[in-house]
Amino acid sequence: MSYNSPMKEVRKLSDEARAAFQAAFGDRFITTQAVREHHGSDESPYPACPPEAVIFPHNADEVVTVVNLCNQYDVPLIPFGIGSSIEGHVLAIEGGISLDFTEMNKVLDVSPGDFTVTVEPGVIRTRLNEEIRHTGLFFPIDPGAHASIGGMTATRASGTNAVRYGTMRENVVSLKVVTADGKIIRTGSHARKSSAGYDLTRLFVGSEGTLGVIVEITLRVYPIPEAISAAICNFETLESAVECVNQIMQTGIEIGRVEFIDEQGVKAANQYSKLSLKESPMLLFEFTGSASSVKEQIEIVQEIAKDNGGMDFEWAEHQEDRNRLWTARHNLYFACLQLRPGARSITTDVCVPISRLAECVTETAKDLENKPFPWSILGHVGDGNFHVLMMIDPEDPQEWAMAEEINNRVVQRAIDMNGTCTGEHGIGIHKMNFLKKEHGEDAIHLMRLLKHAYDPKNILNPGKMISWEA
Amino acid sequence: MSYNSPMKEVRKLSDEARAAFQAAFGDRFITTQAVREHHGSDESPYPACPPEAVIFPHNADEVVTVVNLCNQYDVPLIPFGIGSSIEGHVLAIEGGISLDFTEMNKVLDVSPGDFTVTVEPGVIRTRLNEEIRHTGLFFPIDPGAHASIGGMTATRASGTNAVRYGTMRENVVSLKVVTADGKIIRTGSHARKSSAGYDLTRLFVGSEGTLGVIVEITLRVYPIPEAISAAICNFETLESAVECVNQIMQTGIEIGRVEFIDEQGVKAANQYSKLSLKESPMLLFEFTGSASSVKEQIEIVQEIAKDNGGMDFEWAEHQEDRNRLWTARHNLYFACLQLRPGARSITTDVCVPISRLAECVTETAKDLENKPFPWSILGHVGDGNFHVLMMIDPEDPQEWAMAEEINNRVVQRAIDMNGTCTGEHGIGIHKMNFLKKEHGEDAIHLMRLLKHAYDPKNILNPGKMISWEA
Repeated sequence: MSYNSPMKEVRKLSDEARAAFQAAFGDRFITTQAVREHHGSDESPYPACPPEAVIFPHNADEVVTVVNLCNQYDVPLIPFGIGSSIEGHVLAIEGGISLDFTEMNKVLDVSPGDFTVTVEPGVIRTRLNEEIRHTGLFFPIDPGAHASIGGMTATRASGTNAVRYGTMRENVVSLKVVTADGKIIRTGSHARKSSAGYDLTRLFVGSEGTLGVIVEITLRVYPIPEAISAAICNFETLESAVECVNQIMQTGIEIGRVEFIDEQGVKAANQYSKLSLKESPMLLFEFTGSASSVKEQIEIVQEIAKDNGGMDFEWAEHQEDRNRLWTARHNLYFACLQLRPGARSITTDVCVPISRLAECVTETAKDLENKPFPWSILGHVGDGNFHVLMMIDPEDPQEWAMAEEINNRVVQRAIDMNGTCTGEHGIGIHKMNFLKKEHGEDAIHLMRLLKHAYDPKNILNPGKMISWEA
Repeated sequence: MSYNSPMKEVRKLSDEARAAFQAAFGDRFITTQAVREHHGSDESPYPACPPEAVIFPHNADEVVTVVNLCNQYDVPLIPFGIGSSIEGHVLAIEGGISLDFTEMNKVLDVSPGDFTVTVEPGVIRTRLNEEIRHTGLFFPIDPGAHASIGGMTATRASGTNAVRYGTMRENVVSLKVVTADGKIIRTGSHARKSSAGYDLTRLFVGSEGTLGVIVEITLRVYPIPEAISAAICNFETLESAVECVNQIMQTGIEIGRVEFIDEQGVKAANQYSKLSLKESPMLLFEFTGSASSVKEQIEIVQEIAKDNGGMDFEWAEHQEDRNRLWTARHNLYFACLQLRPGARSITTDVCVPISRLAECVTETAKDLENKPFPWSILGHVGDGNFHVLMMIDPEDPQEWAMAEEINNRVVQRAIDMNGTCTGEHGIGIHKMNFLKKEHGEDAIHLMRLLKHAYDPKNILNPGKMISWEA
């Protein structure tokens, strides 16, 4: 194994603590190795760091019980959605208990009149959309993975629809949270806007389980657009495709989605999803709105694409064609992994001001030239957000090191362009140093003050995002 | 005077402290009574609470100097924009220094390619729009008053355009802030989205000067819409007008603005702005977008208005007609004051989930029936946000008490409907009890932890929003 384990000193569960958890949860205090190992890994490159036990709570009161016991016995507590995070968020690097929300998976309320739904953290985003489809509404945030709403809230997730609907930051209305001292609080009302006090909602969104345990989420939902149309457009070069997006954004039209996939990505999608897309840099568009506004958007975008050397649009008018395309986009991570059987992907994620995007992507492609492993650049370019996937041999330390060095270069470049070290994947353990580079010591100090104030015993996902000591 | 002064025990400036400020700022450490009194009042009903001195800083480094001296000598520090707040935000209730940002009024950067501008806190929103008009962009947030961007950020302001563009919460990209220990931090990058760490930007937006001093603000700006059209529509009853807005929102169309003005408000506007509007409950619409989407919006909205008993639309196609209408809307506060010369307005501000709005407004009107003073209900109803203006005789304690009782009822009703005690005016000192009612003791405890962590000596706008002790 070439990646050093991030495991730190484990705060061992004492016999007394074990007995207390067992008394409270009986059989549901699970310590079998398979379950523990499953909860010690995510999609990051690190080796597993299993928790000492796993609990599947049924309701907020049970979460309070867990938090109180963790407090009493100094036990780390790690909220767990489905384990699709990428930067090591759920690894039990100091041992402790993984709190799996699979069984808190109810849609508690649907209020079409207010465009809100309230769910438990274990609800999977795709199931939420199935459950509310009959109302004509949908929840747009779509990070690709079949992620849980709790996990998406905790990482401030976004994805393909963010260019039109924003991210979890804009779409969480309010939260119910269990604090480190075992209180249940609500972070806000259901009003669309408020000037009442510090914005606790936004404080917990993106806090990666380090400030409190999210037990209920109220979300904004939106009418399913009247008209949806999707198209792909190929380009000769990566630069011209990205420049095309920049120019589209400059017009201010509200495009539904615009995704960039490079040549290698298209190749991978063709193989994995059995498509026959032209293998050159590609933009994948979705236009949504009323029939006439969709028509209008398409006319403008086609013209801009043409000006940038875009080839003819290929249309996916029917829902099944659109689904095939978007499913291929969603599966791109797995498709890329198949480019090299047995490989592991090092995935990075940055976001820069849109005017710097073409330059940032082009420079990144240069970093990747002639590397001994397959790679792909793709992303939600309408937001200035892109990912690099590097499919490395997990047994080859040189490839690990090379991929990490490229990751460093890409992230540093984004920061230098006044961008961020992560647009949507979060910090976890992998990007803690970059967080410091991006924000500077004094801002990190403010974050640490917050962590110390809200979690004075450092039991909530300790060692993640921000180090306890300066 | 019927309103008790909110003045608390003043932390007197010692001679040593005075000497230190004078050494640092010379003549610019201002202690003349007129200047102090001006800085001790806002648009709230309270009597003035003048600071002991006023400083007009020229740059962030001077703000650091002030903060460091305040720290050293235990002096309260109150950031001051233009004093248009309504809930007592800027009153120097513990004495100290008012920091007036009038002279930090530069637009520092305009980046049309990234849809961002960066400004000093003293920039007035209308001047910002004048300065960037040549770029084809505009900053939409419009709270009515000629407010400063710093003040709007600190109170999480919104206003007529929020239904389309969101509030300061959604439109502040990042901040430069001087912390209580005199460090300058930046709260985020200029990327459109980020998952990098706690959301410090949203934490300072709406913090009312209690967590740090904002010295620079980066904002999102938007393309000026291609087509803009405004219309008014009268209704027989307040309820049908508000229900019309509810139904419009249900369609999901993105209306530019939709404002409600009740009969009394229209009357006041006619008198003050020399208009001849029909004096019945009225909706004031603005439709924006491409020419065809504006046409489409208008068709839908006209039909819904008709279904709800709306009368014929009256159009304001030309910019000067639109300006006249919107200027009348902006001046409504002053127009209402003129309904009763010598009166003072008690203004309340709540926001409820849109499905409860018609009920909330109707019940509020019942509270106001047969009161001995003029009143008006108006608001940004597309967001569920409305205001009540009560023009009371400042010398009559019974009227004060009556107005405060109605304020209590309106706010409590909004909270009971899962709404908020303030949609856009903030807490200041006037709504501190409501903040507690809305959030509950345990959430208030989290806010207090934050205040204690970020301002351990309680020098930053002390006594506002959240009490120091439980």
